[in-house]
Amino acid sequence: MTRTVRINRDRLWAALMELKEIGAYDDEATGLRGVRRLALTDADADARRRCVEWMIEAGLEVRVDRIGNVYATRPGRDRSLPSVLMGSHIDTVAAGGAFDGTLGVLGGIEVMRTLNDAGVETLRDIEVGFFTEEEGVRFGTDMLGSAVTAGRIPIEHAHKLTDEAGRTVEEELIRIGFDGDAHERRPVPYAYIECHIEQGPILADAGVDIGIVEGVQSISWQRLTIRGEAAHTGTTPIASRHDAGLVAASVVVEARRMCDSGDFGQLRATVGSFDIGEGQTNVIPHKATLTVDLRNPDNDHMTAAEQHLAGYVDELAARHGVQVVWGRMARTAVVLFHPGIQDLLAATAGDLGLPYVRTMSGAGHDAQEISATCLTAMVFVAGENGGISHTPREYSNPTACGNGIDVLANAVVRLADQP
Amino acid sequence: MTRTVRINRDRLWAALMELKEIGAYDDEATGLRGVRRLALTDADADARRRCVEWMIEAGLEVRVDRIGNVYATRPGRDRSLPSVLMGSHIDTVAAGGAFDGTLGVLGGIEVMRTLNDAGVETLRDIEVGFFTEEEGVRFGTDMLGSAVTAGRIPIEHAHKLTDEAGRTVEEELIRIGFDGDAHERRPVPYAYIECHIEQGPILADAGVDIGIVEGVQSISWQRLTIRGEAAHTGTTPIASRHDAGLVAASVVVEARRMCDSGDFGQLRATVGSFDIGEGQTNVIPHKATLTVDLRNPDNDHMTAAEQHLAGYVDELAARHGVQVVWGRMARTAVVLFHPGIQDLLAATAGDLGLPYVRTMSGAGHDAQEISATCLTAMVFVAGENGGISHTPREYSNPTACGNGIDVLANAVVRLADQP
Repeated sequence: MTRTVRINRDRLWAALMELKEIGAYDDEATGLRGVRRLALTDADADARRRCVEWMIEAGLEVRVDRIGNVYATRPGRDRSLPSVLMGSHIDTVAAGGAFDGTLGVLGGIEVMRTLNDAGVETLRDIEVGFFTEEEGVRFGTDMLGSAVTAGRIPIEHAHKLTDEAGRTVEEELIRIGFDGDAHERRPVPYAYIECHIEQGPILADAGVDIGIVEGVQSISWQRLTIRGEAAHTGTTPIASRHDAGLVAASVVVEARRMCDSGDFGQLRATVGSFDIGEGQTNVIPHKATLTVDLRNPDNDHMTAAEQHLAGYVDELAARHGVQVVWGRMARTAVVLFHPGIQDLLAATAGDLGLPYVRTMSGAGHDAQEISATCLTAMVFVAGENGGISHTPREYSNPTACGNGIDVLANAVVRLADQP
Repeated sequence: MTRTVRINRDRLWAALMELKEIGAYDDEATGLRGVRRLALTDADADARRRCVEWMIEAGLEVRVDRIGNVYATRPGRDRSLPSVLMGSHIDTVAAGGAFDGTLGVLGGIEVMRTLNDAGVETLRDIEVGFFTEEEGVRFGTDMLGSAVTAGRIPIEHAHKLTDEAGRTVEEELIRIGFDGDAHERRPVPYAYIECHIEQGPILADAGVDIGIVEGVQSISWQRLTIRGEAAHTGTTPIASRHDAGLVAASVVVEARRMCDSGDFGQLRATVGSFDIGEGQTNVIPHKATLTVDLRNPDNDHMTAAEQHLAGYVDELAARHGVQVVWGRMARTAVVLFHPGIQDLLAATAGDLGLPYVRTMSGAGHDAQEISATCLTAMVFVAGENGGISHTPREYSNPTACGNGIDVLANAVVRLADQP
């Protein structure tokens, strides 16, 4: 058995607390201090530069690729061998917290510092990186940087994606100075380990800090644009209406009914975005745009859910005399992580005396993209308040974070010493 | 029988076409030229000034009251007698047409010109006026100017109403120069006749241009503000959610179901405004605001509909663990117009050889406020495209408009000669 290392928990926590000030704002809804660090904004750029500083301070070799992914390398004894990669993302949703993604990146940097302090040498290079636009809230495609790296999304396509103001990914990469020279299809790693907060209640309910992630459920994101007809609310007979807002609302209600029905397995369906423009009390809405976010740990149930929803909307559109245009934003099948890496993570946690559970991920992660290229698995860290995330209420305590990064550190050392 | 007058249809049409250029814009949804002339905006001020010019050119005495209502008087032989008043409004919704309200005002001015041209003298004064903020879309209270004049809303309350930017009615009246000196509780007229487009399909379906309006249905406007909790769409179990958007959408769907059920008579229910803020695909909405617009020609059915909806929302809020705050925006009971004035309008239309039907109004009108003070009734003019209104598609043809104003002119002359 290899030697055991222990990270510096105070140093990790200090980094987390420092980075959450970049993009910080006072959140009205919760009364808390939140983080708003959308991909390739000025706040994201500031956070990127701070991470690069830390990487350089840790003596790492930093490179940036053409989609803005950043990697920092700690050389091993045999540099001809594929590296062991740690990573995640530092972009957030519009009203986010300090841990989602960031824990895996700052945790990876802390692993490097710990190995430096302990004078640990490894056979293989170890890398820590962060991927561009994991959240997908600015440019509409989540896991963007990792999907480009894994070859699922061509870089030409990624560069042309636009935000709501019409600015492209490429323009914004150039503007913030993260349009790197490294090729986006990086040398294939030996293994990739991502440590991430759970963003759910399973670990806390089981009374453990650590989750060994078996895979990621299928994710489907679609946008519906509905065109009806404006008319006077008081005078237009019910049967003569083409109410785009009503059709949109019916989709919201049906999506939830589908979850409650049990007909689609463990489906989770959410309408997170719903816009009818400048609505007026006495005018029937003539347009509506909404997004439908479906998640399912079973591919067949996911396909059935999509088909049912499409049929429901067709029938609804015909009944109300409105036009509906569907736009595909994202679609990923169920991803299962490598059993051997899962077992190595489990053994590492056991050796550290840390109880754990095995679980599927409800959220999408960069690891699901990278898993197409190399041995991949994930470590989850429990959150408080039912693991709530994508809100300033998101919180994982210093002990849980430290335990998760201890598992990451020791698993990575073991992998990096594998011939 | 008194003499018959005929208005100048070309002159009326030219005025309608000229005024619709004030506040005109290119409407994306319809590809048509629409009118956006919200109350007390610069566009409204320009249109007000143009109307006042026309009034002065017609030799009328113009006065402006403290809520910005404008009246123009054509003197009768006995100025001690209460006047006969014509009127409506010239403000529009955000994406409106050229006829709603405006027909009654420019029609009234055309009546004055016609009487001048024909050298008609009347016993009583005749007046034409327009009332401030009939639509209610800017300051949230419809029929504002007429309600203040009729004494239902105190002027101090009306002056303090604010738009979304926080500007008060009083500030805006002063800014556009329509904070008049005349007392808002004007001398009570002998009678009030309002000519207005139908904004519905009943006249066109009956094949007539003219409607004699029996009354206005009950109107209820309420605003619901819903507070839930943001959370991650992929990881948050369905049973743990506090989805404000789902609760809001459920209200939209239930409101329509209530209409379809027949349990609430001829209820018309609409959610015209629905806002969840800056929504994101992968975040459960934490807040929602919507308006509920209920219309009913029967007071008991209206009360039952309001009570049912309140109970439904209470149950829904408890089930989803969200907070709901109700705000009352407007509430009017069924208004019935004066049978004698209805009969006089019907006789006038008959004498002019114009077929008509009797109908209830689905929309609210200034006439329902003024009817609290004097003999009141309304003339409806048919619209094309099913009478669609509150959209740039709103259209009444020159013949229908001319016929409606001919009825107005002759009815007003008859009333103004009554001792």
